[in-house]
Amino acid sequence: MIEHINMTMLTDFYELTMANGYFETGMSNDIAYFDMFFRKIPDGGGFAIAAGLEQMINYLDNLKFYDRDIEYLRGKGMFSEGFLEYLRNFKFECDVWAIPEGTPIFPGEPLVTVRGPVIQAQFVETIMLLAINHQSLIATKANRIVRAAKGRGVMEFGTRRAHGGSGAVHGARAAYIGGCIGTACALAERDFDVPALGTMAHSWVQMFDNEYEAFKTYASIYPENCVLLVDTYNVIRSGIPNAIKVFKEMKPAKMGIRIDSGDVTYLTKKARAMLDKAGLKECSIVVSNSMDEYIIRDVIVQGACIDSFGVGERLITSKSEPVFGGVYKLAGLEKDGVIIPKMKISENVEKITNPGFKTVYRLFDKDSDKAIADVITLDHESIPDGSEYEIFDPQIVWKRKKISNFYAKNLRVPIFDKGVCVYKSPSIGEIRDYCKAQIDTLWEEILRFENPHEYYVDLSKELWELKHKLIEEYKE
Amino acid sequence: MIEHINMTMLTDFYELTMANGYFETGMSNDIAYFDMFFRKIPDGGGFAIAAGLEQMINYLDNLKFYDRDIEYLRGKGMFSEGFLEYLRNFKFECDVWAIPEGTPIFPGEPLVTVRGPVIQAQFVETIMLLAINHQSLIATKANRIVRAAKGRGVMEFGTRRAHGGSGAVHGARAAYIGGCIGTACALAERDFDVPALGTMAHSWVQMFDNEYEAFKTYASIYPENCVLLVDTYNVIRSGIPNAIKVFKEMKPAKMGIRIDSGDVTYLTKKARAMLDKAGLKECSIVVSNSMDEYIIRDVIVQGACIDSFGVGERLITSKSEPVFGGVYKLAGLEKDGVIIPKMKISENVEKITNPGFKTVYRLFDKDSDKAIADVITLDHESIPDGSEYEIFDPQIVWKRKKISNFYAKNLRVPIFDKGVCVYKSPSIGEIRDYCKAQIDTLWEEILRFENPHEYYVDLSKELWELKHKLIEEYKE
Repeated sequence: MIEHINMTMLTDFYELTMANGYFETGMSNDIAYFDMFFRKIPDGGGFAIAAGLEQMINYLDNLKFYDRDIEYLRGKGMFSEGFLEYLRNFKFECDVWAIPEGTPIFPGEPLVTVRGPVIQAQFVETIMLLAINHQSLIATKANRIVRAAKGRGVMEFGTRRAHGGSGAVHGARAAYIGGCIGTACALAERDFDVPALGTMAHSWVQMFDNEYEAFKTYASIYPENCVLLVDTYNVIRSGIPNAIKVFKEMKPAKMGIRIDSGDVTYLTKKARAMLDKAGLKECSIVVSNSMDEYIIRDVIVQGACIDSFGVGERLITSKSEPVFGGVYKLAGLEKDGVIIPKMKISENVEKITNPGFKTVYRLFDKDSDKAIADVITLDHESIPDGSEYEIFDPQIVWKRKKISNFYAKNLRVPIFDKGVCVYKSPSIGEIRDYCKAQIDTLWEEILRFENPHEYYVDLSKELWELKHKLIEEYKE
Repeated sequence: MIEHINMTMLTDFYELTMANGYFETGMSNDIAYFDMFFRKIPDGGGFAIAAGLEQMINYLDNLKFYDRDIEYLRGKGMFSEGFLEYLRNFKFECDVWAIPEGTPIFPGEPLVTVRGPVIQAQFVETIMLLAINHQSLIATKANRIVRAAKGRGVMEFGTRRAHGGSGAVHGARAAYIGGCIGTACALAERDFDVPALGTMAHSWVQMFDNEYEAFKTYASIYPENCVLLVDTYNVIRSGIPNAIKVFKEMKPAKMGIRIDSGDVTYLTKKARAMLDKAGLKECSIVVSNSMDEYIIRDVIVQGACIDSFGVGERLITSKSEPVFGGVYKLAGLEKDGVIIPKMKISENVEKITNPGFKTVYRLFDKDSDKAIADVITLDHESIPDGSEYEIFDPQIVWKRKKISNFYAKNLRVPIFDKGVCVYKSPSIGEIRDYCKAQIDTLWEEILRFENPHEYYVDLSKELWELKHKLIEEYKE
């Protein structure tokens, strides 16, 4: 039920001080455009994966200030009664566009744009960033791990090390979008249809007088799918021999062993040989000890005999880089129907934002269907298929590139129209399939874990010229 | 409202398969003892801080399987109807002991012990670990950052980069326990009394025709406490001069500036000089750009003029080490009122657990009130004050130590008695004060960020002898 709680007050306090400020100065209904984008791909990877949009939509669709919220805010002694009344009658009225979940995304692209009364478009910053940052982080990490596993299944096993309940459940959802085959978390299946699995802990084995009895009892209760944890005492001398004995006696329909400690390359090779020798070639081997994409890559190279992986803390916290740094910046104002582009100027060129109401096109090669480049354009622009088209590096003046033999796809879809949700999230399975298909359109060089090729995210001529005109104006 | 949701199904699926297994084999009511403990202090620190107990209690107090849960489980096709009926009538019946929140804790100590029917004591593993791991992680990290700030205030600013809503809100709660002075998260104040603060984003400044107008408008609305964000355009050439002008014109009761980018040592020295020269010595300087304990320590050493820090992603995700590795292990069974100690044997000596029903005493020096050592004992043992007392290293046979001139304090308190909560959490302010006072009992050498002195966590003679007897038995 995590997704249906009212999270309206899950916001940075400054959203409220600013909202009250806009209300008091009569600026509430000034129309503003805000973009959400990120600057850096976690783990030095070549792309990230968009996720969290469904939760963002739920938040926005349920924005409501209850009496308890109003009382709390009144108690702060800094908000006008008029503003509190406005909040009591709050009705979301913004337009929202976003890149759907499962899409490979790149730095600088407007993942989400909100257009509407500044009092509202500013207010939704925190929850929007929270939802998209968290799930994009985990989906991106999960996909790295899944790709390292080269077709072997990866289960998300991290609930106990997650950062709170939504860290666990939304994390499991994002991990599934990124390509995991399931999760250990029951709530993620009940509420988000992520397949949940799990068999036994070491304590189950310890509860019985001996390992054989523990295994035999389990096999008698779960004859359909019997995965035995073989490392409570000693994998080679005790766990595997007892498992083999029980499998032969009980003949479960599906059988597997899980190893949760020790040197998995050595142990799985040994285990595979023992199982095969016993005629149990169909018995699968699951490994679940401090895995991530690097360790998985290494043990596969070393010839470890593993059918699937359980990945815990290093996935659910994205341990090697636990932050997805999405930001939310003002891109424009609208006065009398005319958009006045805004941008943040910085000494650091990478922190200069792109001005105006924008969208993103992905250009695909007509022959190979591979993605060639993304182009950020002003929203009113279109890109005719096939014709020669020139794209411009956001920072470096002399870097431009002509593309031909392509077709273009606008990556963004409308999500809210004047506060009304006009988008229906696909099923989680559809999102996961879409994600896989989209990653298949990326060149292999972009998929490297280290030093990937940097994918082109360029600007259209019109946006490039607007940006450089504004920079020149600012310098004067 | 995050804390009142029913989280019963926020559990690893294997807790359910094992529960059904115990039910089917008639072992449900076998009495088991489980300990939660951790093995490694995050960031190589000298101690961690216990947190999350209040949320753990809420979870346990609200354990209930609803129709929706039962239907979901029935749909899995692997659970007996008898078991589902048991869940429908589930009533928590365990005894629970724990170390209160805010206490400095060390590896190997039983932070929580659960005694009760194995079907229940096993089931609560996941949510218990989730609650304690998450908040202990953040409280520990926050305390490092707070200590680095040497008396300057530290605000938690990380909501937008947290791992989900409970990552943000429970994280803000834990950060406050660890010594932060407040949070940016409004929901954390509404629900957990963590003081929330916040003023403006860059977009506020950009919404106006110029910076001066943006500042002046803000000061007119918030004359009591006016903190201006001075780095939207240029801190030295524009932000500070405009802030000074507005402060002089508007004379807010409290005034401050915030710098969110750039070289904070250089900028804050320059800003301080400009403010002082303008006669605004009382204007405070807040800095909020990618801070953590190391950067804070460095900029203070370099003489940066900072009155308080806002710390975002590196605190709320504990970026440098985002995992607190608490585990939950079987420590004993009870048959006919007699406890049969259990332990997990491992080739890796650090993974060998301590057997039996245990507690933890902290021994304080009678003269200085400083903590000398912790001793894990069997629960029935007592430690008479002052008398000479010998403690034993858990692994190394020849390492033992005699303590005298001390008084002993049992760190644990009863939390549940046969399923009934018998503990009332202190207020968050009390927990925070308690935490600070307890850290003051630690020797300075333990407080170092790198290479701290390793605090003694030894065993009583009785527990040591029991442990080694079991190891000998196992080896035979």
